Amino acid sequence: MSNNHTDFGLKQHTSKKFEAELEGVRSQLLELGGVVEEQLRLAMNALVNNDDQLAQQVIRGDQVVNGHEIEINDLCTEILARRQPAAMDLRLIVAVLKTVTDLERIGDDAKRIARFVHEMGQHYPRKSQLNRLNDFSGRVRERLRETLDAFSRIDVQAAFVVKKLDDELDDEYRSIMREQIASMSAEPRQIPVALNLIWIAKALERVGDRSCNICEYIIYYALGKDVRHLTIEQTARDLKQELE
Amino acid sequence: MSNNHTDFGLKQHTSKKFEAELEGVRSQLLELGGVVEEQLRLAMNALVNNDDQLAQQVIRGDQVVNGHEIEINDLCTEILARRQPAAMDLRLIVAVLKTVTDLERIGDDAKRIARFVHEMGQHYPRKSQLNRLNDFSGRVRERLRETLDAFSRIDVQAAFVVKKLDDELDDEYRSIMREQIASMSAEPRQIPVALNLIWIAKALERVGDRSCNICEYIIYYALGKDVRHLTIEQTARDLKQELE
Repeated sequence: MSNNHTDFGLKQHTSKKFEAELEGVRSQLLELGGVVEEQLRLAMNALVNNDDQLAQQVIRGDQVVNGHEIEINDLCTEILARRQPAAMDLRLIVAVLKTVTDLERIGDDAKRIARFVHEMGQHYPRKSQLNRLNDFSGRVRERLRETLDAFSRIDVQAAFVVKKLDDELDDEYRSIMREQIASMSAEPRQIPVALNLIWIAKALERVGDRSCNICEYIIYYALGKDVRHLTIEQTARDLKQELE
Repeated sequence: MSNNHTDFGLKQHTSKKFEAELEGVRSQLLELGGVVEEQLRLAMNALVNNDDQLAQQVIRGDQVVNGHEIEINDLCTEILARRQPAAMDLRLIVAVLKTVTDLERIGDDAKRIARFVHEMGQHYPRKSQLNRLNDFSGRVRERLRETLDAFSRIDVQAAFVVKKLDDELDDEYRSIMREQIASMSAEPRQIPVALNLIWIAKALERVGDRSCNICEYIIYYALGKDVRHLTIEQTARDLKQELE
């Protein structure tokens, strides 16, 4: 009897330690999310204020992002090896392994924007030309924030909303591109500046795509459903069934 | 004694079945690689020959790519749950989970090129304007082929070479971009065509990047080393030590 009791105690302990490990992975991933979000914010600040020192800081900061990525990958592999997780725990680890790649690449996008600040020189856009891009980056960062919130609360509905709103980001990106193409055509001397603006808009639009990818991993983790290649309508139908 | 013998037999059997499962994952991944390679080849054929029907076929074919991705993800998760792989087997599954995402996104790049064929209309480049892009795509596809070969042979050296040669692809991409910027500046009516050429070059350059990512996963799988954020020089030094 006392033996049984001890066994039970041990199992509880093990499972509690295991739970703490899983919680650790989740919180490390969210920490990386926070770092990446901040990198993006700083890169945009550097851009809007033509602040080369801040841009350099963002470029150096990418090493912190990379360090986090390696740590989280290692942690996941270790948990897979030692804990042999099943069902939802296993899906968490798979979702984290996928998500960490997208977060790291959002970090690359932030670094890319910072590099533009450093390299545009005489083709630097005027402040008024950056307003729209700055608004766009605000909306992109909102989606990223909502994505990280959805991950921390495993909120399938919120993840779904981010996925749905991505069309708006795509539309805005295309509209910025059209505007710049018109500006180039009207004044060919504007070509290098307009192209720089297009590249930065593209990097931001990609951050939106990556947030969507992460939202799909959240849905997979929560429901065990791979919605990556469904249309919004199919996904909505599926989720409604699951949540009913 | 006979019991022991039976146990041994069972274990052999289990391990053989397990090995067959791992082999199955590897070969499914390579099959997906083949599909994606073909998608890219056909997309470029459609582009060079302005063949809308072929472009439509590539766009539809992306669903096959997506189906493969889901299957491979499921297979990996199942093996993790049932087999609890360790050491190199575990690293294979992690590497496949990461690689499959990059392969699927190469498929997206092929689809993107096919969409251009379908949508460029009056801004379709002349055949002579496509020659350089076609050569570039040949080199990109060569890198992808070498990547898939390196995966099938777990050839760390070959993976390293692909990673090293990516700089050449980046240089060629930048050179194509400079050429197109010059063409736009000289003749503003060329702007839409030149931009189309730049977007397609960008999609191809990204395929090169994704091949590199996969090569890094191959090195991780073979050596247990994460070389993703090292310079070429650091990686070369590390690999030399490992292989000595």
